[in-house]
Amino acid sequence: MADPNEVPIAHGGALSEAVARYGGSASEWLDLSTGISPFTLPLPEMTAECWRRLPEPAEVRRVCELAMRHYGGSVMPVAVPGTQAVIQLLPWLAPNADLTAIVSPTYSEYALSYRRVGKAVEEVHSLEAAADTQADVAVLANPNNPDGHETMRDDIFGFARAHRQRLLIVDEAFADLRQDLSMVGAAGMEPNLVVLRSFGKFFGLAGLRLGFVFAEPKLARILNERLGPWAVSGPALAIAAHAFSRIDLIGELRTRIAKANTMTRSALNMAGVSIVGEAPLFFYCEVGEGAAVRDAMAGRQVLVRAFDHSPSRIRVGLVPDELSAVRLRETLRLAGARVT
Amino acid sequence: MADPNEVPIAHGGALSEAVARYGGSASEWLDLSTGISPFTLPLPEMTAECWRRLPEPAEVRRVCELAMRHYGGSVMPVAVPGTQAVIQLLPWLAPNADLTAIVSPTYSEYALSYRRVGKAVEEVHSLEAAADTQADVAVLANPNNPDGHETMRDDIFGFARAHRQRLLIVDEAFADLRQDLSMVGAAGMEPNLVVLRSFGKFFGLAGLRLGFVFAEPKLARILNERLGPWAVSGPALAIAAHAFSRIDLIGELRTRIAKANTMTRSALNMAGVSIVGEAPLFFYCEVGEGAAVRDAMAGRQVLVRAFDHSPSRIRVGLVPDELSAVRLRETLRLAGARVT
Repeated sequence: MADPNEVPIAHGGALSEAVARYGGSASEWLDLSTGISPFTLPLPEMTAECWRRLPEPAEVRRVCELAMRHYGGSVMPVAVPGTQAVIQLLPWLAPNADLTAIVSPTYSEYALSYRRVGKAVEEVHSLEAAADTQADVAVLANPNNPDGHETMRDDIFGFARAHRQRLLIVDEAFADLRQDLSMVGAAGMEPNLVVLRSFGKFFGLAGLRLGFVFAEPKLARILNERLGPWAVSGPALAIAAHAFSRIDLIGELRTRIAKANTMTRSALNMAGVSIVGEAPLFFYCEVGEGAAVRDAMAGRQVLVRAFDHSPSRIRVGLVPDELSAVRLRETLRLAGARVT
Repeated sequence: MADPNEVPIAHGGALSEAVARYGGSASEWLDLSTGISPFTLPLPEMTAECWRRLPEPAEVRRVCELAMRHYGGSVMPVAVPGTQAVIQLLPWLAPNADLTAIVSPTYSEYALSYRRVGKAVEEVHSLEAAADTQADVAVLANPNNPDGHETMRDDIFGFARAHRQRLLIVDEAFADLRQDLSMVGAAGMEPNLVVLRSFGKFFGLAGLRLGFVFAEPKLARILNERLGPWAVSGPALAIAAHAFSRIDLIGELRTRIAKANTMTRSALNMAGVSIVGEAPLFFYCEVGEGAAVRDAMAGRQVLVRAFDHSPSRIRVGLVPDELSAVRLRETLRLAGARVT
């Protein structure tokens, strides 16, 4: 039977498909195919009410206040059911725009979102290059996914201020540990700047579907109207309220991520694999034949992500522990990743 | 500070606002302002994975298969994060349509969704009246909210078949206990028919944000593309998979709802209030001055819903138990609801 739920683009995290294709049980797999932290904090006791009742405006407001503080925003953000839900709505932030420049290669869904509604997209290699186009909108992931490319805050300010008539969308899904890059504090102040933050990646809770968008009130209102009431689930709000309030646990997560980052880097180095880009939650590696290495690793129940746009590379998420680090190293070797 | 998350339309379920305005603690209130069942089933143990991982296509598929069986569908539905999320997207199911006929008065968000994108809306009093308009799309809630009006299946079939060039959207959010009215089985067979089902109302789990849409593949694909990947949260999928599989617990819920419906009806009758419409999960009552009665009841920490479009009426959800039934009856009396 035709399944309308089929996902058209290959993404990381499709472990069930990997299990179906390569065998093993899900628990035997080491899934490094996403940039989601392998660590999370202990979930709070949730009241029956958060499942039963429609999430209330007052709860949303409270979580948004905490998010503003946590991310260092200057304005109240819009709570969204995952940043993907916002990417779907990006075209409506500038409905009259003809052309969008996307700093590429990057997450494939930005371009898809614009093209789906008949909008033209131009792929550019930097924000500076975006300035040279006729684009009405520029989209930048910072740090970029999958190559970890960083655009400095001054350059982003420069673009936003030199091109007031252009909308600048900065997706900071992977900026949690790079506050030095973040434009969150400027969103709402610079009227043409929109900043997206993902809750699930740093907190290791991607299944929740939660994110925040910082923007000036008119743009925020467009998003809210497009999303409609009760867009974010009760459990997501309850967990976020807990997580944002526990600075101690956030500190622990930072420490664990930093340690896992070091372990993963060592494993890649020891396997002789060249790291050509990185963000705190993933590494981008040159391995010769990305798809072949991914397939060979999958045959050993280790899942990484390969890319059509960069066929010699793979993206590797963080290993959770030393044992997994050893497994990653050995699997890369056995998979014939080209060494430097 | 401006809060972009403010909900523009008054809906039921805003208990925090009522508490802020009328006092008492949330637990002291009897919230009858929604049509959400006061009962739910014991939640399953959830794996850490359902919070941590991105929901996988295979899980979505499994839940959709169970939903197809549970609702009696002929095609695989699209899983959506609440039917409200679909209402937001209704205009895209017929992007070239100029005029939409909405069987009214009804849930206010249908008209808002079309008007927001510049589409014209004509309010009509029945599906038959919709046929006499120039509308390209007709929207029907069946049973209707808030008046409980029922449109018979034959009439819906009649419309769908006589107007193949028109899209017919049937929101069956309150049809769980009225399978005799449901068009779910015809969706996908009748190419111009789209049926929306809400998970949270019958299962008493509105905080989850989950619904299903039954439609032919091209329309289903439009919805999926507009929603994007991972639209439904991991916990929602896990709980739905559990709920749909437990026919015993579903039977228990039906029994409890039927009993609560009887208790609520008795309380309304004993208070001398005239029931002018109903669905299994709510009653629509003539009380003279709807807003005044609502306010007076709120002063006694009982929350019901009044309506601008029908100022003499209130909607009353189901009381969970006999004690609440007594409280509803007494509060109606004290609030000066006009008796018949």
